[in-house]
Amino acid sequence: MTAAPKFDAIKAARARIAGHVRRTPVLISESLNDELGAQLHFKCENLQLSGAFKARGAFNAVLNLPPAQAARGVVTHSSGNHGAALALAARSRGISAYVVAPRTTPASKQQNMRRYGATLQLCEPTLLARQAAAEQLVAETGATLIHPFDNADVMAGQGTVTLELLEQVTGVDALVCPIGGGGLISGTAVAAHGIDARIKVLGAEPKGADDAWRSQRAGVITPVAQPSSLADGLLATVAPSTFEIIRTQVHAVGTVSEEEIVAAMRRIWDELRILIEPSSAVPVAALLNGALVVKGLRVGIVLTGGNVDLHRLPWGPG
Amino acid sequence: MTAAPKFDAIKAARARIAGHVRRTPVLISESLNDELGAQLHFKCENLQLSGAFKARGAFNAVLNLPPAQAARGVVTHSSGNHGAALALAARSRGISAYVVAPRTTPASKQQNMRRYGATLQLCEPTLLARQAAAEQLVAETGATLIHPFDNADVMAGQGTVTLELLEQVTGVDALVCPIGGGGLISGTAVAAHGIDARIKVLGAEPKGADDAWRSQRAGVITPVAQPSSLADGLLATVAPSTFEIIRTQVHAVGTVSEEEIVAAMRRIWDELRILIEPSSAVPVAALLNGALVVKGLRVGIVLTGGNVDLHRLPWGPG
Repeated sequence: MTAAPKFDAIKAARARIAGHVRRTPVLISESLNDELGAQLHFKCENLQLSGAFKARGAFNAVLNLPPAQAARGVVTHSSGNHGAALALAARSRGISAYVVAPRTTPASKQQNMRRYGATLQLCEPTLLARQAAAEQLVAETGATLIHPFDNADVMAGQGTVTLELLEQVTGVDALVCPIGGGGLISGTAVAAHGIDARIKVLGAEPKGADDAWRSQRAGVITPVAQPSSLADGLLATVAPSTFEIIRTQVHAVGTVSEEEIVAAMRRIWDELRILIEPSSAVPVAALLNGALVVKGLRVGIVLTGGNVDLHRLPWGPG
Repeated sequence: MTAAPKFDAIKAARARIAGHVRRTPVLISESLNDELGAQLHFKCENLQLSGAFKARGAFNAVLNLPPAQAARGVVTHSSGNHGAALALAARSRGISAYVVAPRTTPASKQQNMRRYGATLQLCEPTLLARQAAAEQLVAETGATLIHPFDNADVMAGQGTVTLELLEQVTGVDALVCPIGGGGLISGTAVAAHGIDARIKVLGAEPKGADDAWRSQRAGVITPVAQPSSLADGLLATVAPSTFEIIRTQVHAVGTVSEEEIVAAMRRIWDELRILIEPSSAVPVAALLNGALVVKGLRVGIVLTGGNVDLHRLPWGPG
C-alpha cells in the first residue's frame, strides 16, 4: 500500500519543484464574502502551468525518479489534468509520457495532453479499463507508472498548494478543496496540520460521485457504481492511502448537485473573472448550498483547474 | 485645457489609492512567447476591483476632491468601466455617482455600474449626447464631472498600473496598451518615461475606431465619424491632453480587425485562463497580426478589463 506523505516530504517537494511550477495568485470576492459571512481566499491553481494544480504532483514525481528509471519514461491514466501535467513534467526532463484517458475526456483536455507531448491512448470510461491499459503500457515500455493520486510523491506535490497559500494568507481557519481520488485533499491535510493542527480541512464532491462522503460515513471505502458528473475531474474513487487521511484528518465532506456546480462555476467566472472548470466549482457550490459552513472563518479555497471547452459552456446563450 | 499629469502626480496617486485598489498579478504564456519571440508579461487589470484598470483613475480623482465638493457627488459619461469604477469609488466615500452611458452598453457593464450604486442614465450612442447629458446632470446636481480620460487625476491614476508593473517585472523594454480616449496610454507613457526614458510605449486600436492612429499620422486630432467595434471600451476620441502625450511619447500605434480581436480574446482565455473583454484583446491582436513588433524584447501588456456578457461570447457554440 502507498504510504501517505509526511509533512517533511511536502517541504522537500516544494524545494524540488521550485522554478518548475508557478506561485499562483490568491483572489478575493467582496460579494461572496458578504454572502457567506466569511473571508474567502481563492488559490488560483487554474492559473498553474498546464492549467491545474496537477503540475505540482507530476513535477515532484518525475523529478524524483532516478535517471536510469526516468529514461524509460512515465505512464499514467488520467481524466485529463494529471495526464497533461505529467506530459509537461516529462518533457522538461526529456523523457516520454504515455497517458491513458477515457474516450469521454473533454476535447480541450485531450488537446492539452497532446500539446505537452503525451502519447495519448483512449479507453472505455471505467476504472478497470484505465488500469488495464496503463498496466499494459508499463509492461510494453518499461516506463514507470505515476498514479494520479495513489502515489506519495504526487500527494506531497499537491500539498505544496497549501504551503504557498498559508504563506500568502495568514490566520487561515479552514481549507476547502474538491475530492476526486483524494490526492489533493490528502496533501492539503498533511501540509495544513504540519503547520497548524487547528486548521479545519473540508472536502466537497458532486452527488453523482460522492464516494468520499459515503466512505467517511461508512468508515470503509464505498465506491459509487457509475460515477457521473459535469465535474469530470472528480469521478475517481478514493484509494486506501488517501481515504486513511480523509478518515482521520478531514473534518467534513459536503456534496452538491449538478445545477449547483454550474451556478457556482458561473458565479466564479463573473465575480473573479477567471476560467474555472466544473470540478473547481464544487467547493464553492458546497459553501453556497450550505453543505459546508464557514461563517465567521478565514477560509482558503483551492480552485483546482481551468481546462474547459469554451465552445461547450454549461450555460445557454440566453 | 486639461494638463497632462507629471510623474510626481502618478507617484502621489499611487500613495492615495493604496489600500483602495488591488495589486493585480502578472501572468505569462510560454506559447505566446514562443510564437512572438518575445517575453510577454500580462498585467491583469481585468482582476482589478470593478473588473478594470479604471478603478485606479476613479479612486484617485474621487479621493482627491475637497470634502465640500465631494459631498455634492460625481458625474461622468462612460462606456461602462469608468462608470462602474467611479460608482465604486464614490460609494467608498459615501457620495453619489451619476453616470451617463450609451444605450448600446453591454448588459453586463450596465449591471456592473448599478451594482456599485451608480444612478445610471442611458443616452444615444454619440459623444455629443453623452456630453450633453453629463453637463445637464452637473447643472442639476452640483456634482463634479470626472471625465473618463480628459482629467489629470484620472490619467495619473491610470499611470499607477505601470508603476506596479515595472516593480513586478524588471528590465522591461516596451509597454503595450489599448487606446480609447487615451487616458491609460497617457498615464502609461508618463509613468514609464519617469522611470526609464528608453521604454517604448506602444498603442493599439480597432480599425473601426482608429482615431489615434489617424491623428498620429496627421499630426492633428482626426476623429472617426462613426466609430464601431466589438471593443466597446475603445470608441472614444482622443482629447487634446491625451493626444499631446500620444504625439510626443508613444512610439507606434497598431490597428486590428474585428476578427483579429475575437481571435486574440479567445487565445488569451485559452492560454491564460482568464476572462478579458474585447477591448483588452486589442493589444494582443496587434502583436499577433504584426502591426506592432516586439521580437527579442521584454514586454508589458496591460489587460485592461474583464467585463463581458458570458451569454454573448463572440464565438459560436461549435
